[in-house]
Amino acid sequence: MNANLLRFAIYIAALCGLYLATAMVVPAMIDLYYGHDDWHIFAICAFMVGGLSLMTAMATRGAPPTFTKRLGFVLVNLLWAVFSLVGAVPFYFSGLGLTFAQALFECISGITTTGSTVLVGLDDMPPGLLLWRSLLCWLGGIGIVALGLFVLPFLRVGGMSFFKMESSDTNDKPFARLASFTRAFVAVYVGITLSCAMAYDFAGMGHFDAINHAMTTVATAGFSTHDASFGFFRNDALLWVSTFFMTISSLPFSILIVFIVRKRLDALRDPQISVFVGYLCAFSVAVAVYHHLRNDVELTTALTHSFFNISSLLSTTGYASDDYTLWGPFVILLAFFATFMGGCSGSTAGGIKAYRFVILSSIITTGLKKLIYPNAVYSVRYGTKTVDAETQSTVILFTTTYLLLWVVGSVLMGLLGYDIETSTSAVITALSNVGPGIGSIIGPVGNFSTISDPALYLLSLMMLLGRLEVLSVMVLLMPMFWRT
Amino acid sequence: MNANLLRFAIYIAALCGLYLATAMVVPAMIDLYYGHDDWHIFAICAFMVGGLSLMTAMATRGAPPTFTKRLGFVLVNLLWAVFSLVGAVPFYFSGLGLTFAQALFECISGITTTGSTVLVGLDDMPPGLLLWRSLLCWLGGIGIVALGLFVLPFLRVGGMSFFKMESSDTNDKPFARLASFTRAFVAVYVGITLSCAMAYDFAGMGHFDAINHAMTTVATAGFSTHDASFGFFRNDALLWVSTFFMTISSLPFSILIVFIVRKRLDALRDPQISVFVGYLCAFSVAVAVYHHLRNDVELTTALTHSFFNISSLLSTTGYASDDYTLWGPFVILLAFFATFMGGCSGSTAGGIKAYRFVILSSIITTGLKKLIYPNAVYSVRYGTKTVDAETQSTVILFTTTYLLLWVVGSVLMGLLGYDIETSTSAVITALSNVGPGIGSIIGPVGNFSTISDPALYLLSLMMLLGRLEVLSVMVLLMPMFWRT
Repeated sequence: MNANLLRFAIYIAALCGLYLATAMVVPAMIDLYYGHDDWHIFAICAFMVGGLSLMTAMATRGAPPTFTKRLGFVLVNLLWAVFSLVGAVPFYFSGLGLTFAQALFECISGITTTGSTVLVGLDDMPPGLLLWRSLLCWLGGIGIVALGLFVLPFLRVGGMSFFKMESSDTNDKPFARLASFTRAFVAVYVGITLSCAMAYDFAGMGHFDAINHAMTTVATAGFSTHDASFGFFRNDALLWVSTFFMTISSLPFSILIVFIVRKRLDALRDPQISVFVGYLCAFSVAVAVYHHLRNDVELTTALTHSFFNISSLLSTTGYASDDYTLWGPFVILLAFFATFMGGCSGSTAGGIKAYRFVILSSIITTGLKKLIYPNAVYSVRYGTKTVDAETQSTVILFTTTYLLLWVVGSVLMGLLGYDIETSTSAVITALSNVGPGIGSIIGPVGNFSTISDPALYLLSLMMLLGRLEVLSVMVLLMPMFWRT
Repeated sequence: MNANLLRFAIYIAALCGLYLATAMVVPAMIDLYYGHDDWHIFAICAFMVGGLSLMTAMATRGAPPTFTKRLGFVLVNLLWAVFSLVGAVPFYFSGLGLTFAQALFECISGITTTGSTVLVGLDDMPPGLLLWRSLLCWLGGIGIVALGLFVLPFLRVGGMSFFKMESSDTNDKPFARLASFTRAFVAVYVGITLSCAMAYDFAGMGHFDAINHAMTTVATAGFSTHDASFGFFRNDALLWVSTFFMTISSLPFSILIVFIVRKRLDALRDPQISVFVGYLCAFSVAVAVYHHLRNDVELTTALTHSFFNISSLLSTTGYASDDYTLWGPFVILLAFFATFMGGCSGSTAGGIKAYRFVILSSIITTGLKKLIYPNAVYSVRYGTKTVDAETQSTVILFTTTYLLLWVVGSVLMGLLGYDIETSTSAVITALSNVGPGIGSIIGPVGNFSTISDPALYLLSLMMLLGRLEVLSVMVLLMPMFWRT
């Protein structure tokens, strides 16, 4: 790291701070509108953070250094570190009496669109603070989609490149296309959020709740304005609206854009979409039938709650309508493993993701075929396309590292005194950015309020690791990365 | 499958039956010697099975068909299926009142050297039956080492080839070398068993127990002649003797042979040995220190029990000296994940195995390096050797399939009504051929006596899958395999 790189990194960090400080004005205004004294917390935070950031930005601006992959990795990590710290400021200075670890965890849970919470008594909380939580999710969501579309493919870490995707289509100037694509992307993200808010409102949620839940739905984050999450509303229509929008938000955004803006239906023919929707439906129906037979619940009710909670887990949102861990051991096991799976690449969803499962299952079948006929040539496929060796390696590298982090994290949670259900499910729900775990502490009706500070730091790290597709953070641990 | 292949397969199956029928004479004689009426059960079984097998063998003998990989896969599966069924006969007809599923489970647990048991009241059981259990383990152990050394490498499924290993050394005739190697191999297996029995005897175990435990130690199986396993003896010297022999038995047999027969110390320089011994010591010391600090246990006692129980898990033996699940959540989590790991390739140990971890960790580090310098060339290494792409693929194929089977098996156990701890640990302890799981039912002081028949069938299948390195069985599921 030379001096110019360091200056540029600080400059970018300051811009992030400025961006979040501006966002703090929104909850300040909401608290002012509802006549809550809390508005001054957000105003002061915005003023302090904004001022400091502005001064730093002024002092460090200048020509950007040459962009290298290593700079890319540093910036990605820095960006999320700054967002984590700055976003935590209002939580820390609010009247909630949170420790620094708790404030940081809550913020990171928001911006990584995880949705695990350390707060209890959400129903009586000032609206500004509730909105700040939702806003962190929503901004985190748009951030992660942008990262996945525009940055990670260049770092060769997961995701699908906008350029790769489009290159076969046209021969226009790439930056003109990038600009129009970015506009379409923001428009679609905002559009889906507004449609979702209106649908929630129409289904009976109330304006404030509808806006908050729409923001955390489209970001597949899962923060709610009520301790009982969707269980609070006791409204089946709301569950189906949410199921629809959670599923939509787990689909690749690039493909949604092509579908919505260009009206091209064939865009939905991506194999990861059919696989994702396939296992979503299969799991939901299996759970509903089991719930119906085992617990004598009416089949329509079972289907409603099953689709909602399974979509919530697979889209890595993390809402709950009911304590599904009481439905039986089959549901607990399925919920546990569903937490690893996740949605589609290029969405706000986390987890191992459907496209990796498509590639992994092709690796298994071609591998078994090769055992039978060692001299025949079989290629690993993604739909009709052949998957090159580099992509296969990246998928394997990601999955192996992901599982390794889960194992190490779980053992560390055990060392911090948590039982095996809490340890293993807390780490995977953090790493996959889902939200709830299993067991009596952090299950679907529990929360993270009693989790100790060291464990919250560990889980915060896991959320960041998962959100940055693991490898973007892991490269920083290689001594080689820091050698010049 | 043409008629000649089918005939040959039946012929081989009959030979297996004959082999096991002969083995049944040993427990019959022991029961006769100790004056137990049970001797006639073994005598009748030996007579019936032996006669039937002999007649079948006579009727189906003839020239063997050309050996193909597909025939190899069929024979390997058939061999273990016949052993499973024939070995279960004495359990089923004994006076213990076992269901067929229980008898089959007990036998498969023996021949796969798993060591999970459905029997309670071992301390009062007829000696013939106890010896039959130990004998199944011992024969299973020698069978699996032979399979790993001579057969699986030709099927390109795991293991390390005797020929590959030796080819760089000499240019002698391979079959002359094979014969002398086989003699050395049997001599070493018998030699280690006898040394172990004498050491147990010397340390105070008593002749009968010493012989039984020696057979199940060298096979890393874990059947004991007492319900309390090694907890029965309350003898620290015995624990250390066992720790030593369990560890020895988890090392590659081929390397032990080179070491013992040819006195070549450099044979022990295989990277998987240092990695295996490394994590064994690291885990044991960590658990001992944790146990000492948390539960105020004397450090020497903690070290004795920690080394014994961790060796037991990592060597996939499955003895227990104490209920280590009461030592604290850290130990439970470590024990759970240790169940996946296993010993070295080419031994009687199961699990994912140390050499795969060596290769996987090299895949991770080279992958991360490639992310930093995409154009540099880094090769995956096993010690000083470069690992070719085919070996890498097989390691990945194995590990992915292994974990997939664990997930599917655990969910099915959930469907059969078992809680998440029992489900996930039962499946992995079966798949890795370890023995005990965690939780109140199948934990280190529990057993499988209350597990339902369908679950026992599932777990029996998992034990066989794990023992045959998963892929040898999975290829049979490919429709392609059966097309001619």
